Amino acid sequence: MTGSPVLFIVDASGPRRVDPRGPHLAVTDWGVTRGDGIFESISVIAGRMPALEARFARLEASARALDLAPPDRLIWTDALRMAIDAHEPVDRLAVTIVMTRGVEGGDGSPTAWLLARAARDFTRIRRSGVSVVTLDRGYASDAAEGAPWLLLGAKHLSYATNAAALREASRRGADDVIFTSTDGFALEGPTSSLIVRRSELIESPAIDAGILAGTTQATAFAFFESRGFRTRFAAIEAADLVECDAIWLVSSVRQAVAVHTLDGRGMPVDDALTADLNRWLGDEARLE
Amino acid sequence: MTGSPVLFIVDASGPRRVDPRGPHLAVTDWGVTRGDGIFESISVIAGRMPALEARFARLEASARALDLAPPDRLIWTDALRMAIDAHEPVDRLAVTIVMTRGVEGGDGSPTAWLLARAARDFTRIRRSGVSVVTLDRGYASDAAEGAPWLLLGAKHLSYATNAAALREASRRGADDVIFTSTDGFALEGPTSSLIVRRSELIESPAIDAGILAGTTQATAFAFFESRGFRTRFAAIEAADLVECDAIWLVSSVRQAVAVHTLDGRGMPVDDALTADLNRWLGDEARLE
Repeated sequence: MTGSPVLFIVDASGPRRVDPRGPHLAVTDWGVTRGDGIFESISVIAGRMPALEARFARLEASARALDLAPPDRLIWTDALRMAIDAHEPVDRLAVTIVMTRGVEGGDGSPTAWLLARAARDFTRIRRSGVSVVTLDRGYASDAAEGAPWLLLGAKHLSYATNAAALREASRRGADDVIFTSTDGFALEGPTSSLIVRRSELIESPAIDAGILAGTTQATAFAFFESRGFRTRFAAIEAADLVECDAIWLVSSVRQAVAVHTLDGRGMPVDDALTADLNRWLGDEARLE
Repeated sequence: MTGSPVLFIVDASGPRRVDPRGPHLAVTDWGVTRGDGIFESISVIAGRMPALEARFARLEASARALDLAPPDRLIWTDALRMAIDAHEPVDRLAVTIVMTRGVEGGDGSPTAWLLARAARDFTRIRRSGVSVVTLDRGYASDAAEGAPWLLLGAKHLSYATNAAALREASRRGADDVIFTSTDGFALEGPTSSLIVRRSELIESPAIDAGILAGTTQATAFAFFESRGFRTRFAAIEAADLVECDAIWLVSSVRQAVAVHTLDGRGMPVDDALTADLNRWLGDEARLE
């Protein structure tokens, strides 16, 4: 039972439910002609929305980065609630919120929608883990400093290079990517945050390296702290990744996947710890 | 007299004319959710298509860079001809060809369309020139080497940073941008190629610096050669721009605009030469 996708177009008059199979966007929407817009992914677990506050905060930060009007939390919360009610009950919904700059020659109002779908089942990959290749992202770790127009750290629609990196990984027989900076630091995945373990220390790259503030990453840190690990943001040298005691990629819908192979070399994995982490991430709705 | 835009959706069954005011794209099109697609702009001058061969070649190169199926030149030429016939006669049509990766969960076929519109009148800015700021593009000039997933040099839909750079220019009171590499070279504009003059030498940045091969730039070189200038591709230091005898940004529809101000400093302009260059670029249809 997965149910049918539910789509709401959101404009000044509020959320309006439409047929998700139909076309709804003009070919002159800046979202498609320039990838000029922002998005956010929200997991709905058993009808609840974990870390919603953090996701709204990130959506607002993305809007600021792109000089878009701030999203109205009341309208979006309303739309989220309506979408959850409209969708057939499922264990987990994957909801995407998108706001583009609107239509070329239009009145300046954004094009916005919310799409709710039964989340893909990632149970298997959460258990099996992934093989990963490191790929250069072309930027130095300080590229974002003083260059806000690079939009590093904003969750925007111009993800063609992320998609290309994932195709490159596939060509190399791998499942996923860890981006590295030109000055040798590990950054993030194309659609996930990076967490590493070194003994009892859990680390993620600092977001001033021009990466996305991970909302699932923050929840994962809370898990590790509850288990007695120390957590911190740090500059993680890409060359040191192979020395780590564990590497995870975390994101809202897929949750945590252990990296069992890095650039063709086997990595240690802790199946029990990964399972516990995923239980925590999947349970977070009940914890709030 | 500008006439109404003409839109053709292009799929396996060929070009199909549709109402350009209507919605034609699904919210799950990879073109909008990931900016995952390519485009090309074509000027139609008095019914003719200058440099069409070069633009098809660039579209094909972009398709290769993004692992998209090569566009079928026959179908697109057909669609171009139909759009020109369908549009009210105008001096100049601006035609955009777009191909996206298609719809999420679809059959893998691209979403493709051709939009023909009367070109905006850029006569005034061709005469008045533009003020420009240099902005760091975050990449070193050798970033493209060995990192094809960065898609440098492909004309793709993930242009949010280009749009953000133009907004930054506007905030600084300027009209346009010249991107620079982290290692200090001048690259290109967000939607244009860069040409500089040093005495009787005309230069453009080499495309192995990860910039777009300019089709209008190539036509402009032909003009300068016809006037006895030497032309060449070279590494142009951003710091040397202020020493140049002239700077132009060139693109297919706006053609050549002289840079009269660079980062707030006045630059020499040669109105007569710029006018001649624009006459050549506007005439190119008759030259082929």
